[in-house]
Amino acid sequence: MDQIGIPDIIVGRLPRYLRALQNMASEGINKTSSQELGNYLGISAAQIRKDLSQFGEFGKQGTGYTVPYLIEELQKILKVDRVWDMVLVGAGDLGHAIARYQGFKDCGFIIQMVFDSDPAKIGNSLGSFVIQDISQLVPSIQAAKIVVAMVTVPPQAAQSVADLLIKAGIKAILNYAPVTLNVPTDVHVQHIDPVIHLQRMTYYLD
Amino acid sequence: MDQIGIPDIIVGRLPRYLRALQNMASEGINKTSSQELGNYLGISAAQIRKDLSQFGEFGKQGTGYTVPYLIEELQKILKVDRVWDMVLVGAGDLGHAIARYQGFKDCGFIIQMVFDSDPAKIGNSLGSFVIQDISQLVPSIQAAKIVVAMVTVPPQAAQSVADLLIKAGIKAILNYAPVTLNVPTDVHVQHIDPVIHLQRMTYYLD
Repeated sequence: MDQIGIPDIIVGRLPRYLRALQNMASEGINKTSSQELGNYLGISAAQIRKDLSQFGEFGKQGTGYTVPYLIEELQKILKVDRVWDMVLVGAGDLGHAIARYQGFKDCGFIIQMVFDSDPAKIGNSLGSFVIQDISQLVPSIQAAKIVVAMVTVPPQAAQSVADLLIKAGIKAILNYAPVTLNVPTDVHVQHIDPVIHLQRMTYYLD
Repeated sequence: MDQIGIPDIIVGRLPRYLRALQNMASEGINKTSSQELGNYLGISAAQIRKDLSQFGEFGKQGTGYTVPYLIEELQKILKVDRVWDMVLVGAGDLGHAIARYQGFKDCGFIIQMVFDSDPAKIGNSLGSFVIQDISQLVPSIQAAKIVVAMVTVPPQAAQSVADLLIKAGIKAILNYAPVTLNVPTDVHVQHIDPVIHLQRMTYYLD
């Protein structure tokens, strides 16, 4: 289902459409329109129609979209119609919160391993996990063929952790450290940095 | 410094430029170029020059940007040349991690109050905070004139918490709950949803 040449900015909106549709489905809504979806997300109906048209024909003029069908199609496009195993590196406060977050499992992302470099943490339990020594990261990930990782280590450790993950075969990194990671072109990185979101809002405040 | 009519997508890139420049400054780098900044962020040099030109003249052709100067100017534009007080609503795992996160304070965002609705949590310590009863949220925020909030409550509680925050005068909400919030047009909302970032990457995986 990978479509060559579709701009990343469009790809980036699809998970938001999927999230909105899943919220609608959980409220028992079975039909929606690009207008309603647009109002929900603060995106124009025309933009939504244009984005979706890149991937196929999912609704009919005038009758709108069937919510469960569009959810299924978006899941296929985003390749989340399957389960993705993940590793978590960094068992600090944020790592703890993430390891216990139910929202990943509900969307098909399952944390399988947790690593840290702190001897005081290695061997401890974190929820249902035993925190593993980061020295075991490469062989463990290679053996399990895991390709998705989340990084919640301090900023000064993030690049060296990313280097290890890449060596282990990881292809997608969700990075919570507030630093840019240097990665090969076949490795995808997304950053979560709350300060950036806050600053985007303070711009508009008096 | 608020510039009327500058697209939000441009505003949204400024905090990333600021973060990159701050990382450069912490590495002792004093001069940079749109090319170097672009390589660092995976954004084209032309885009960076175009974005910055919306706000003024910050560098000279051929000599590039002085890092501390551009940091200062971006901080003024984003209004983070001052301290922003914040409230945190939701003292669960993620709330704990956020309350202890140093990265906010370093960027001028200071959590002043933490609220929860759970009687088992109210009155407990969370780092240097005492968790307050959410029934005190409106008067406490109004008295302190705080306008920025972070929400780390379960999804089903997020809208009612947002309604309270708006009543209290909050104008910017960083929402960690995976639901869209309905807010008046003068209230800004940013979402942090790790699943959306993961799905944006799995699209590209095999």
